[in-house]
Amino acid sequence: MIHRSTVHEVLIAVFQVRAFTDPDPDSPELAVLLWQRALDPELGTWSLPGGTLRDDENLATSARRQLAEKVDVRSVAHLEQLSIFSEPDRVPGDRRIASTFLGLVPISAEPTLPADTAWHPVSALPAMSFDHGTVVAHARHRLVAKLSYTNIGFALAPVDFAISSLREIYGAALGYQVDATNLQRVLSRRGVIEPTGRRAPSGKAGGRPPALFRFADNSIRVTDEFAALRPPTPNTP
Amino acid sequence: MIHRSTVHEVLIAVFQVRAFTDPDPDSPELAVLLWQRALDPELGTWSLPGGTLRDDENLATSARRQLAEKVDVRSVAHLEQLSIFSEPDRVPGDRRIASTFLGLVPISAEPTLPADTAWHPVSALPAMSFDHGTVVAHARHRLVAKLSYTNIGFALAPVDFAISSLREIYGAALGYQVDATNLQRVLSRRGVIEPTGRRAPSGKAGGRPPALFRFADNSIRVTDEFAALRPPTPNTP
Repeated sequence: MIHRSTVHEVLIAVFQVRAFTDPDPDSPELAVLLWQRALDPELGTWSLPGGTLRDDENLATSARRQLAEKVDVRSVAHLEQLSIFSEPDRVPGDRRIASTFLGLVPISAEPTLPADTAWHPVSALPAMSFDHGTVVAHARHRLVAKLSYTNIGFALAPVDFAISSLREIYGAALGYQVDATNLQRVLSRRGVIEPTGRRAPSGKAGGRPPALFRFADNSIRVTDEFAALRPPTPNTP
Repeated sequence: MIHRSTVHEVLIAVFQVRAFTDPDPDSPELAVLLWQRALDPELGTWSLPGGTLRDDENLATSARRQLAEKVDVRSVAHLEQLSIFSEPDRVPGDRRIASTFLGLVPISAEPTLPADTAWHPVSALPAMSFDHGTVVAHARHRLVAKLSYTNIGFALAPVDFAISSLREIYGAALGYQVDATNLQRVLSRRGVIEPTGRRAPSGKAGGRPPALFRFADNSIRVTDEFAALRPPTPNTP
């Protein structure tokens, strides 16, 4: 076997729920942040933000540094490590082992982007570089799973919101519509969201202004562990 | 900066619930598989199974190959990727980026081990090599979390079991005791375990033989997703 050097890189799939004019101007969609390659290999295809790990940084530090080249990292409300893409021939040339990350930007943020960078609907990706399309699919799969057993929605939602807006955000992230009444009931019962006590300035259809809710936490936690498996509390008799 | 080469390695924390004579001969404990280093660096300390990634293998392939050097891999009922340890100076010499894995062996398996390898209670680890003790702590943390929202217990339990035995296994893995009645109720309601229709040969105390249960699945799944977020089924009106 010819010995190749091995390079370690990070790739970050940054998602935001956004409105696109196409196909449906009224319905927000899950979008991913991509930049277009201006050089070979794979000139013209679209890539995830990322690049080579430096000698003096760990993966999380590297992910934040590389992300900062494409987007204001203060707008990234959640960043977590996904799996590693380690197929020996996943890219041509030197072997590149990719540590992948999931990043989430709230719907209310509008970060400035460089000229080569744009949001694309996950449902209609452009020609993607190497295996980056597979990385997007894995990241979306993780997001969908975590929406169902954690409070990760906090990182996609604005600070406060009507349930009708939250339903749109969940629907976009999941890829199918959910019922607003069920959503409110389940997320409230699990302590994921709570009422702010305030109402929106006015209702969409001129009716009664809807109640505003917020996420109870701004960092991720598992929200529905088996109660039977919780550790004993210190004041248990 | 002096340029060092970077090596990619895998490390696997393999857990099994086992009975140890010390401290309590009747109470099984969570144990981890370790081997003792016969050479420097860190001669005499205990390490997790693992080693360097080869040019022609991906991480999962490598993990299984390296595990096979220490334990019969057919006894490993579950193997999943954990986080990457990438601190630049985590080991002396060349930089080593470690991809870590969690492996689980059922209580009923008794795999043959090489002379340098032994099970150690997680509650009383020997002097550990490098950051391997931290890897064990991370792996245990993941196991505890997944016991609370998945069916991962299948990979620690025997094929069929009385609830009193399952309670011991969960208690050992979690690090605190759980109530057998609650455990049976919650795991049954979520479809994680189901009755086999059979009873054990005889009760421990000579009483009525206990009913035997089994796990409904032998691969991992999230068992308590929000029902409100399930995808629509094709036959929904």
